[in-house]
Amino acid sequence: VNPRDGWPNSRADAMASGAGRVLSSASIHPATGSACADLNYVFATTARNRALTKRILMPEQAVQEALSMVAAGEKVGFLFGPERAGLDKEDVARANAIVSVPVNPAFGSLNLAQCVLLVSYEWGRQTLQLPVGDFHIAGGRLAETGEVDDLIARLVQRLDHVGFFYPEAKRRHMIINLENLFRRLALTRTDVQTLHGITRALSEKIKGTK
Amino acid sequence: VNPRDGWPNSRADAMASGAGRVLSSASIHPATGSACADLNYVFATTARNRALTKRILMPEQAVQEALSMVAAGEKVGFLFGPERAGLDKEDVARANAIVSVPVNPAFGSLNLAQCVLLVSYEWGRQTLQLPVGDFHIAGGRLAETGEVDDLIARLVQRLDHVGFFYPEAKRRHMIINLENLFRRLALTRTDVQTLHGITRALSEKIKGTK
Repeated sequence: VNPRDGWPNSRADAMASGAGRVLSSASIHPATGSACADLNYVFATTARNRALTKRILMPEQAVQEALSMVAAGEKVGFLFGPERAGLDKEDVARANAIVSVPVNPAFGSLNLAQCVLLVSYEWGRQTLQLPVGDFHIAGGRLAETGEVDDLIARLVQRLDHVGFFYPEAKRRHMIINLENLFRRLALTRTDVQTLHGITRALSEKIKGTK
Repeated sequence: VNPRDGWPNSRADAMASGAGRVLSSASIHPATGSACADLNYVFATTARNRALTKRILMPEQAVQEALSMVAAGEKVGFLFGPERAGLDKEDVARANAIVSVPVNPAFGSLNLAQCVLLVSYEWGRQTLQLPVGDFHIAGGRLAETGEVDDLIARLVQRLDHVGFFYPEAKRRHMIINLENLFRRLALTRTDVQTLHGITRALSEKIKGTK
């Protein structure tokens, strides 16, 4: 709506980090009214305004409602205010509800970029079917259980050589602990090779054995 | 860790928007190792790194796990990288897991401030017992049901005067629609006064009645 520095704006392009495509698809309007004209529901992002009787939602719930409305075929918009002054009263009055990011009231509020980032993050969090997390295996695959079995057996054998499992009564318990440790690591094949090498090197140094 | 521009830093204070208290409680360390020394679990915030075998979590799940560990008495830390270069390999290797914010890979990544904001937002979202939203009543209270009854009755009376409810067979249905509309608005007492005034003014203009 009525960009302060004109449009298109080469500085905006430069700051878009490759997302110029998003900027090119922006439409420019002389006023908030025409920008919102085809929307069925408008959320205004603003700090709490005591002078208005209006629903106030957290970003999480606002995005939830927006997604329900979009799924029902409605057009939903989010209004963000300009950097310094924020949305003016007329813009907020035009909106159907307010989105307010909870911030510590002692420490001021969010700037425009922060507000856009958080609402976009919520939108992404709720729409992208992302895995909860994953486990990245660098260069190769996880070792097979048998390979880890061999590693543990070799290690136990060498530790037996040096009398590590003492007293004998605790031997079984100590081996289980060792095994738990190695299984928890989700070792790759490369890890297993490395640990074989370490075990061999250490026992050669200490005992002079092969 | 080893701040580039020294510490304390008056420019940092100026940019803290009143949150100088947070800065004063920061501790300074010569290296990442000593900064993390007393932590039990460390999350590194970084873009996906192909050279490491490590758990990768979304912010939502990382904060969830961190909160569980904190509840169990563990000390949990988040490592954020410096602005340009990000965390180096040694720092990431030190971490127990990686937090990666899902961004469109075509458009680059987040800067330091954005990353801190999103992780903090997740922390706040999951820890603050915030209401889902609320309904702010400006200057006054919601009208009582009886006051809205009176408003609707008066309006129906005036509409009857001008023959609005036509045909008679539809009268009941039209009144129910009107009532639904007014009840949905959650009118304040001031709203009710305003609507009485409007109703009166319109019917005086049209009919010359009082």
